[in-house]
Amino acid sequence: MQTHFEKELAALKEKLLTMGSLAESAVTRAVKALVDRDDDLARQVQAADDELDALEVEVDDLAIQLLSKAPLASDLRLITVAMKISHDLERVGDEATKISRRAIDLGREPQLKPYVDIPRMTTMALEMLKGALDAFVRRDSAAARAVIPRDTEVDALNKQLHRELASFMVENPANISRCLSLMVISKSLERIADHATNVAEEVVFLFEGRDIRHQLKGKALA
Amino acid sequence: MQTHFEKELAALKEKLLTMGSLAESAVTRAVKALVDRDDDLARQVQAADDELDALEVEVDDLAIQLLSKAPLASDLRLITVAMKISHDLERVGDEATKISRRAIDLGREPQLKPYVDIPRMTTMALEMLKGALDAFVRRDSAAARAVIPRDTEVDALNKQLHRELASFMVENPANISRCLSLMVISKSLERIADHATNVAEEVVFLFEGRDIRHQLKGKALA
Repeated sequence: MQTHFEKELAALKEKLLTMGSLAESAVTRAVKALVDRDDDLARQVQAADDELDALEVEVDDLAIQLLSKAPLASDLRLITVAMKISHDLERVGDEATKISRRAIDLGREPQLKPYVDIPRMTTMALEMLKGALDAFVRRDSAAARAVIPRDTEVDALNKQLHRELASFMVENPANISRCLSLMVISKSLERIADHATNVAEEVVFLFEGRDIRHQLKGKALA
Repeated sequence: MQTHFEKELAALKEKLLTMGSLAESAVTRAVKALVDRDDDLARQVQAADDELDALEVEVDDLAIQLLSKAPLASDLRLITVAMKISHDLERVGDEATKISRRAIDLGREPQLKPYVDIPRMTTMALEMLKGALDAFVRRDSAAARAVIPRDTEVDALNKQLHRELASFMVENPANISRCLSLMVISKSLERIADHATNVAEEVVFLFEGRDIRHQLKGKALA
């Protein structure tokens, strides 16, 4: 039978997973709003972001309550990691909101070119996020470790797209404002992959007790 | 006389303040490297960032140890807030590193225009950061609250500079790569002000027990 503490810990995990699915669906909808030029969908993303903000505050409240009752070092670690993961998921929601705002701006002008790299980056970033959260649920630190190197691929795609958009600007100044918006979107997706990497690193720390942050740091900032 | 726990708590605060001064000096040097076109100085910033990364890990280790011994709810709050502030300061270091990299890139090309807004934004962002950390040291939640509205000014300067740089791009495609670098720097400064705002909000939470995050959210993302 579960103790009261165990039940509260389970509720904390449950809230995190709710945040995870809200964040994933916000990103999916923001990029769909861009591709389909759908302003209504873009505005839904912004509304969903408030829910993520509220959940982050709830997770922190519950976490601080639970810290005073945590009997084991492993529980303390779980609770602090939960606060960090919650912060990352809230930030993913912020990036989705940024994407949705740029989608609305871009919807007011003719489309610059078919979107290929952006949907690819989205798929990769969301796979990373799902992978990191699944690793958390399944207590699988090897799976969490497998997420981390994928960040390099997303970084590379972001850089490639950045170069391509910069050359579109040079070709024709009329492209500049749309290119800037697309650069912001691409950067947001790259940052979502960074948050997924953070979550994966936190899961490794949780189950292995080893802090592996900052080991690939040079790369992440490049 | 201080107990062992109190001594460790004091050591935790001390580490945070060390991080605060490292972060401030990293930003100051990165912007000085830009203005003075000084590559050596820019490279020093990147080296100092490793120190911040290491301190963030030390703060987390110490914090998790202390959580298991914290007798009071206010100590638990202090410890979790310390972890959050430490994360914000480490991120300020990341932004300083980004600025220093762009400073090196910009040093390879003729200067686009005299830097006026960037030093102004830097002063404002650093005043906010110092204000938030001073409020933490002096346990002054009113001073922390006073930091928060200043974020709007930094946001406004960033937007103004962004528009100006976009019009420079349109005027002459030869300006594009330099303008993109300056946009990145301006955005980094704006984000440093966001981190200062986070620290201020955390200080308010610590001393008032009220979570005031996400209240000005629409603005921060605008």
